[in-house]
Amino acid sequence: MERPHNFSAGPCILPLEVFEKASQSVIDLDGSGLSILEISHRSAAFVEIIEKARALALEQLNLNNKGYKALFMQGGASMQFLMTAYNLLEKKAGYLDTGTWSANAIKEAKNFGNVEVVASSKDKNYNYIPKQYEVPTDLDYLHCTSNNTIFGTQMKSFPETVKMPLVCDMSSDIFSREIDYSQFDLIYAGAQKNMGPAGATLVVVKEDILGKVTRDIPSMMNYELFIKRESMFNTPPVFSVYVSMLTMEWLARNGGVSAIEKKNQKKSESIYSEIDRNPLFKGFTEKEDRSMMNATFTLKDEKLAPRFDELWQSANINGLNGHRSIGGYRASMYNALSIESVETLVDVMKHFEKTI
Amino acid sequence: MERPHNFSAGPCILPLEVFEKASQSVIDLDGSGLSILEISHRSAAFVEIIEKARALALEQLNLNNKGYKALFMQGGASMQFLMTAYNLLEKKAGYLDTGTWSANAIKEAKNFGNVEVVASSKDKNYNYIPKQYEVPTDLDYLHCTSNNTIFGTQMKSFPETVKMPLVCDMSSDIFSREIDYSQFDLIYAGAQKNMGPAGATLVVVKEDILGKVTRDIPSMMNYELFIKRESMFNTPPVFSVYVSMLTMEWLARNGGVSAIEKKNQKKSESIYSEIDRNPLFKGFTEKEDRSMMNATFTLKDEKLAPRFDELWQSANINGLNGHRSIGGYRASMYNALSIESVETLVDVMKHFEKTI
Repeated sequence: MERPHNFSAGPCILPLEVFEKASQSVIDLDGSGLSILEISHRSAAFVEIIEKARALALEQLNLNNKGYKALFMQGGASMQFLMTAYNLLEKKAGYLDTGTWSANAIKEAKNFGNVEVVASSKDKNYNYIPKQYEVPTDLDYLHCTSNNTIFGTQMKSFPETVKMPLVCDMSSDIFSREIDYSQFDLIYAGAQKNMGPAGATLVVVKEDILGKVTRDIPSMMNYELFIKRESMFNTPPVFSVYVSMLTMEWLARNGGVSAIEKKNQKKSESIYSEIDRNPLFKGFTEKEDRSMMNATFTLKDEKLAPRFDELWQSANINGLNGHRSIGGYRASMYNALSIESVETLVDVMKHFEKTI
Repeated sequence: MERPHNFSAGPCILPLEVFEKASQSVIDLDGSGLSILEISHRSAAFVEIIEKARALALEQLNLNNKGYKALFMQGGASMQFLMTAYNLLEKKAGYLDTGTWSANAIKEAKNFGNVEVVASSKDKNYNYIPKQYEVPTDLDYLHCTSNNTIFGTQMKSFPETVKMPLVCDMSSDIFSREIDYSQFDLIYAGAQKNMGPAGATLVVVKEDILGKVTRDIPSMMNYELFIKRESMFNTPPVFSVYVSMLTMEWLARNGGVSAIEKKNQKKSESIYSEIDRNPLFKGFTEKEDRSMMNATFTLKDEKLAPRFDELWQSANINGLNGHRSIGGYRASMYNALSIESVETLVDVMKHFEKTI
């Protein structure tokens, strides 16, 4: 059976060679006779895996020797909404409100202090990225979301915050494009898009921003403690860290972030060209803010949906339905999705136009 | 290559048929053409998996239709140390201090209110379970740890707490023995012993104990919210939940908790008999408090360690070293460990005695 073209928004497609190696290691990790699922997290084999994963993360973001530490945690971005505030929010934090996940981050931060929404695109159901705003100078940190999975917008540049930490939720576009990652002081990302399977969360944090709040921080919320324990305060999500390591190795083998960005550009240009050309479709977001990861679009005539759905489903395409909060379609094109999968979708859209 | 006899304390051995099925599903889940690692957590396939896992957990604990909900969370028992207090501790909670994990639970709870240590076995490096103590009547809840992985003690009975919730950390012996699970109001367990791989945490909670504290509870800490969202507030650790489901299915197919308890009794009787009989060894814990899961023992003459280590290692035994805090040896005999593996270890101990 041919593998489906998987446009799922996350958890999402990973490289086939990663699936193959991971599958083998569930039976026998590197000839040890033991499954990756049954080894101690304190074993030499796993310590090597998590150290390699931590190093690869910094390397791929070009953050080596710049004062950053990479940690593997649990709970996804939603847990980081809470943890960032626990560790950094003393009096007031600023947030850019650019989508559902930003809004959730704001909600959680309010448990710990004042939150100022510095800019918001909620007025147009988050179909653009706000650009004209001033960042107050009295914030403990400024928080943004680099890519909005649900709405399909992506920040192309980031506010300058010389005197305060910049925190970024990069769950859905980390490792997808070359940007200056050192402009951020804390980056977090649920693994389940470009890094690996669900169950692990990457946190990359500049050490010198920590230790400045006066509250007591519970152990499992405490970045400093996780740094001190080399990301092994308690049992980490062993398999998710392992598959993340395999995926980052695959990325490194294939030219790293700069090479994958070129591939991602090709894929997104291909789909957006068709959305703009094809008279049956319209894009959801402002063109200049379009995400390279998640292309959102709708049918101009919703009555045609059954016919289009039939076509893409019979082309072995999976996961194209839009999020329930905006409807329509969403083509998620994470790192591991092939150009051929995008071409298949574009062909379906063209064929749909010709045969309607 | 023959699989090692894996006595690892956790993550630990799971049934080989679970490894085989999980390995296959990393390539292709049930003929879908998609990996278990790339499917959406909102897909029909995964919703069925997590619902089956939640149902199996209640069924195996004989807690169906008794007001309990089963949830899959992340962060292990260490996150539950924090969450139980967040959700239940208003003024004062009582804790039994029976080992390292109890002590950690106490430490985290102190972030949220007063903690009274009702009884402790710290005076003898936790080598017994305290029995003569009175439970104060003004506690928000009483917390205990059913099995102490590091020290090898296990509670054989539990305090009666008619008017207050009883909370139990069952990470290392859940699903291993028939007890009246309905005496507990909240049970939690990191998956990585008898339930599945690291990365998932089971919480079984009686709904009527929730909603009684006055503090605001952040979303990711909130049991009530997780119940409302059917354990899918955010992306769950898909693979760990899946393998937990497979492991609980294996348990059910093999006669459930009552059948596995008989097997576990045989294994632990076999090893403890040898520890008591063999003049070269001594057990670490009080006999009446010995754990059926983790047998801890030492050499009477530590100078013999290199010879014993050589023997068990060449018998393809893995993970027998004791925890660094007590040294010596620890034979962890979780559900999936075969009687043959224990017999192999006992044979090595006998052979060691004869040839020393």
